[in-house]
Amino acid sequence: MTGTDHTKIADRSDGPVIILIHPQMGENIGAAARAMLNCGVSELRLVAPRDGWPSAPAEAMSAGALERMPPVRVYPDTAAAIADLHHVYATTARPRDMVKSVMTARAAANDMHDRATTGQRVGILFGAERSGLDNNDVALASTVITIPLNPGFSSLNLGQAVLLVAYEWMVEKLSRTGADTPHILTNGDSPAATQDSLHGLYARLETELEDNGFFRAPDMKPTVIRNLRALLTRADMTDQEVKTFHGIISALTGKRQK
Amino acid sequence: MTGTDHTKIADRSDGPVIILIHPQMGENIGAAARAMLNCGVSELRLVAPRDGWPSAPAEAMSAGALERMPPVRVYPDTAAAIADLHHVYATTARPRDMVKSVMTARAAANDMHDRATTGQRVGILFGAERSGLDNNDVALASTVITIPLNPGFSSLNLGQAVLLVAYEWMVEKLSRTGADTPHILTNGDSPAATQDSLHGLYARLETELEDNGFFRAPDMKPTVIRNLRALLTRADMTDQEVKTFHGIISALTGKRQK
Repeated sequence: MTGTDHTKIADRSDGPVIILIHPQMGENIGAAARAMLNCGVSELRLVAPRDGWPSAPAEAMSAGALERMPPVRVYPDTAAAIADLHHVYATTARPRDMVKSVMTARAAANDMHDRATTGQRVGILFGAERSGLDNNDVALASTVITIPLNPGFSSLNLGQAVLLVAYEWMVEKLSRTGADTPHILTNGDSPAATQDSLHGLYARLETELEDNGFFRAPDMKPTVIRNLRALLTRADMTDQEVKTFHGIISALTGKRQK
Repeated sequence: MTGTDHTKIADRSDGPVIILIHPQMGENIGAAARAMLNCGVSELRLVAPRDGWPSAPAEAMSAGALERMPPVRVYPDTAAAIADLHHVYATTARPRDMVKSVMTARAAANDMHDRATTGQRVGILFGAERSGLDNNDVALASTVITIPLNPGFSSLNLGQAVLLVAYEWMVEKLSRTGADTPHILTNGDSPAATQDSLHGLYARLETELEDNGFFRAPDMKPTVIRNLRALLTRADMTDQEVKTFHGIISALTGKRQK
């Protein structure tokens, strides 16, 4: 909890405003706040929360998020809560009998960033825990966000719905800023081995194996060597690991590396 | 809760095995189970849960998920829990002083589906609530999954971590089966309007505007018409909406449509 870097959060003030309509349990508001801040989204608005605001259960469940976010604002109705926004999304699992643009959470995250680049402020409506959004609230939104889930078991709690939508926003942000690293190899303190150092290791191993009678069928030797090199290459060794491997050969043969 | 379609869940038995190492609160195990089934992932294993198994708080928090999933299996240690799996991922936010392949949850979901196509069974380790995975458990995994989060506030609860990883698996599954629909227009019962019907509407509107002296600067008329058509085209109207719009023109002008 200590060591929170407020500048990092401030960096993300271009995020969507999260608007909870008639939320019931303070715990769920707190869980939503925690999920938001996990994803660098920090502006939370409430429309007529059942148990009023502020809320001690919300503070407790937010795990410190509410203290770090700008103050939550409370509105009497949805229209007031979205008045200053340019584009509004409604999160609902149920298709309605309305003509609406419907996007997955991922497509919507992309759309939000597109709009942010032209200066639009966007907001996302989430309904109450049990009932969800009513049709009048959905009608106020330009776009419906549907989260793809198991159709046989699709009921998400409020905090989880907020988490998935905010997570998609953050992943898209990282992707656009070039800050995503989908796949890397961490290598501790040791740099990756050069091909030259790897080939030295392979050559030593093959010589030792030859000297110890490993290649019983000479015509198969090239294939066995190729397969062995394929295995070792796949391991993507570091400098330190090449040294360790040399040590293993030395130990098993009783010889020091030349 | 009723109406769950078990065939839909069975369809997804190619999903990753979720393995919780030393989970503490039954509530968190239940939340993890609910999140898994939300995303069509249904095999849960526990390593030495602190409060034993089964757990009434877990049942309650799972919102029915545990009843619908195959029985949870309990193991004394991590090695036993992963013995039958081909590839194991460890979920941890902290980079360790180890040489490891590190993937985002999204890249890992892609990797899981690639492995499934060659018949590999995969599992994902999640650590205890406070302490996370210890280095010995991380060492048992081939790949580390890191969920990209706000570096200033990155502590996720167990259920949320399971949700994000399982969600990425499901989205990738939908994408590979062509079942994802990132952006559609729902149109209630009315089909989209044809261009012919739209052009009829535009022409009628422009005629009525001309007759009522709307175009005060004749040299600007082509521009005004073009902008008006751009606005109306953007709305992507349905057949029914074109009829409604004709009704609006009739009402405002006091004339029936010819």
